[in-house]
Amino acid sequence: MEFHYICNDCGAEYDSKHIIYRCPACSGKAAEGEMQRGNLRTIIDPAYLKSLADKKNLSPFDFFPYEIPTPQAYPVGNTPLLGPERLRKRYKVPRLFLKNDGMNPSGSFKDRASQLVVGQALHFGEQKVALASTGNAGSAMACAGAAYGLEIILFVPETAPRNKLMQSVLYGATVVPVKGTYDDAFGLSIEFTEKHGGINRNTAYNPMTVEGKKSVAIELFLQFARRAPEYVYVPVGDGVIYSGVVKGFKDLLDAGLIERLPKVICVQSTKSNAIAQAWESGEAKTIPAATTKADSISVASPANGRMAVDFINECKGWASQVSDEAIIEAELELCKEAGLFAEPAASAAWAGYKQDLASGKITPEAEAVVLLTGIGFKDMKAVEDTIKMPNSVEPKLDAVEAFLFK
Amino acid sequence: MEFHYICNDCGAEYDSKHIIYRCPACSGKAAEGEMQRGNLRTIIDPAYLKSLADKKNLSPFDFFPYEIPTPQAYPVGNTPLLGPERLRKRYKVPRLFLKNDGMNPSGSFKDRASQLVVGQALHFGEQKVALASTGNAGSAMACAGAAYGLEIILFVPETAPRNKLMQSVLYGATVVPVKGTYDDAFGLSIEFTEKHGGINRNTAYNPMTVEGKKSVAIELFLQFARRAPEYVYVPVGDGVIYSGVVKGFKDLLDAGLIERLPKVICVQSTKSNAIAQAWESGEAKTIPAATTKADSISVASPANGRMAVDFINECKGWASQVSDEAIIEAELELCKEAGLFAEPAASAAWAGYKQDLASGKITPEAEAVVLLTGIGFKDMKAVEDTIKMPNSVEPKLDAVEAFLFK
Repeated sequence: MEFHYICNDCGAEYDSKHIIYRCPACSGKAAEGEMQRGNLRTIIDPAYLKSLADKKNLSPFDFFPYEIPTPQAYPVGNTPLLGPERLRKRYKVPRLFLKNDGMNPSGSFKDRASQLVVGQALHFGEQKVALASTGNAGSAMACAGAAYGLEIILFVPETAPRNKLMQSVLYGATVVPVKGTYDDAFGLSIEFTEKHGGINRNTAYNPMTVEGKKSVAIELFLQFARRAPEYVYVPVGDGVIYSGVVKGFKDLLDAGLIERLPKVICVQSTKSNAIAQAWESGEAKTIPAATTKADSISVASPANGRMAVDFINECKGWASQVSDEAIIEAELELCKEAGLFAEPAASAAWAGYKQDLASGKITPEAEAVVLLTGIGFKDMKAVEDTIKMPNSVEPKLDAVEAFLFK
Repeated sequence: MEFHYICNDCGAEYDSKHIIYRCPACSGKAAEGEMQRGNLRTIIDPAYLKSLADKKNLSPFDFFPYEIPTPQAYPVGNTPLLGPERLRKRYKVPRLFLKNDGMNPSGSFKDRASQLVVGQALHFGEQKVALASTGNAGSAMACAGAAYGLEIILFVPETAPRNKLMQSVLYGATVVPVKGTYDDAFGLSIEFTEKHGGINRNTAYNPMTVEGKKSVAIELFLQFARRAPEYVYVPVGDGVIYSGVVKGFKDLLDAGLIERLPKVICVQSTKSNAIAQAWESGEAKTIPAATTKADSISVASPANGRMAVDFINECKGWASQVSDEAIIEAELELCKEAGLFAEPAASAAWAGYKQDLASGKITPEAEAVVLLTGIGFKDMKAVEDTIKMPNSVEPKLDAVEAFLFK
């Protein structure tokens, strides 16, 4: 399929013959305290998209700019769309759905981006992928690398917790702990790719990270019997997942498969709210620091912030902010009332949905999908403190009865 | 649908009007050092089974003795069947498949049993389920309880590691730590159910635990386009998963949907090999102690041992034993060569397959499914020690090059 790139911020266009990351014309020109510029949008040939309207057995792969070889080696997507009966009754919301993307190969939504980056690497005959990440993106890329036999070089600040890196090490990635910050690791990974070749998969930097994540929108379209739901609630940190979701629906719109975009709601923590603030104020500024406990969405300077704000407006969505307390409460509620163990960042989307429901921003009748982006095992620390183990009882029934019915 | 029970060991038959656990005629009669007797087989009406041969859109639920309401609230099964390209090439085994049952709601195969126990509870109007478990069965039942609003009372020995219980507590189960052994907790859970009603979901004790697990066989039949694979490798502790897998294929055989049973291979750790020894010797004895690191299959006195041995013979399978070293090596290989993070017990099945391949027990051309029963996050301890974090490097490209290419 034909596709090209257009800069989100200056409109410059680029063909797709070679690998390209940020816009050469305008990236790096953001002033101190401003969100960075120059992220590229991937534009699929409109005639090709329109040809999909009549295709039977449509698949997310039909929308991908690169072919994905042997997808059964790394089965990304096809994640469950839950109808959580007890939550539906509790909040009287009969058309609530939970999309559990923690059921991806490495346990998070990030596998969607890594899948397409694999396609990109193999298309260009590259065997090496470098990136900076301390979390889900790193383990997703490491997982994909193991499935396809690619060499993954993962730059991390040396202060990154060992627990968060274990999964990547197990998958066989080469982890390079850097004496410095995340920005140092990010910069080094780019220098490394420029000199030694391979693909750079830094999130937002490589346009395929947004593009890969759009597969969830196509999947939802198919799970809803070839239509879009009315609302999709997305937890947002750097704005890449958010933009990927909207991009998928935009492709469906351009293909003529849906008539309008669903409202995609951007949910952030009040302690990591750069995109929400930028959307409200119209000024694309970063924030001094992000301090939310919801690790996967803790971002002060969102790498895809400008595109996310543009897309919020384009789909007529909005940004909602939730407290960290509401996030942890939401995580525990998903566990106890739906049997769904999602990481704090994912639970933020559920907290945002409930808050909007309480404030009347959406009605109980609205059809809404809450996107849960990572499995709870990914970040046990956030809920560990809530767990109190009871005292032990003697091995006798009367002791048990006293314990249970006291 | 009609069904009844038949005792695996004395052949006594029982109707299904009331809840029944072990055979009243012969259970409790095993001598010291012998595997227990009296586990019940569930026998589905043969005429009903035959009627399924012509059914379109066949589902595992068609084979279940109880209806499962709102399955989308607790989406068990439909787990990925991977074609691991790199392992296929490495071992020259083009027809190798990995069934990743870690992608169930609570992260393990045990959700299959809990799903049917929910059906059983709701059929009898019960709202309470008690069980003893320190591991996956407990968290699976807790997860199901959260999804359906059932009260789960989980008896555990007080020495059970907190980490293993956290998931069940998060799902809202009532955890009762007992000053005693697993056997004490098991006994108390039964006493509790007898006096206070509800369902007892002790594994093997409640015949629905074997019966629920059969859904994987029906699913494999559907994933293989309505036929059975030639071999299925199953990790075995108490023999319930093993028996469930074979039972599913037996139902398919009785329905006339397959012509013969696949060979289902029982893989145990050499340090927890009661069923393998019983199959080899023909004597249904327990072992003094199980000491394997593969926690979920560490069982000295298998609660479903006799049925498992009978089923190994019935499907013309065999038992293979693997060392703990081979199990951990297998786990790391699945991570690094397939991007699949499975717990040690699950990895045992992969170790067993490789051992049988090396010894010529199966040929490289054979079509084999290796059943991976739990996600790796469930038991990080077993592989933590294998992880060495490298020293940090200065944030400069030449330092990175020295690090990578030294």
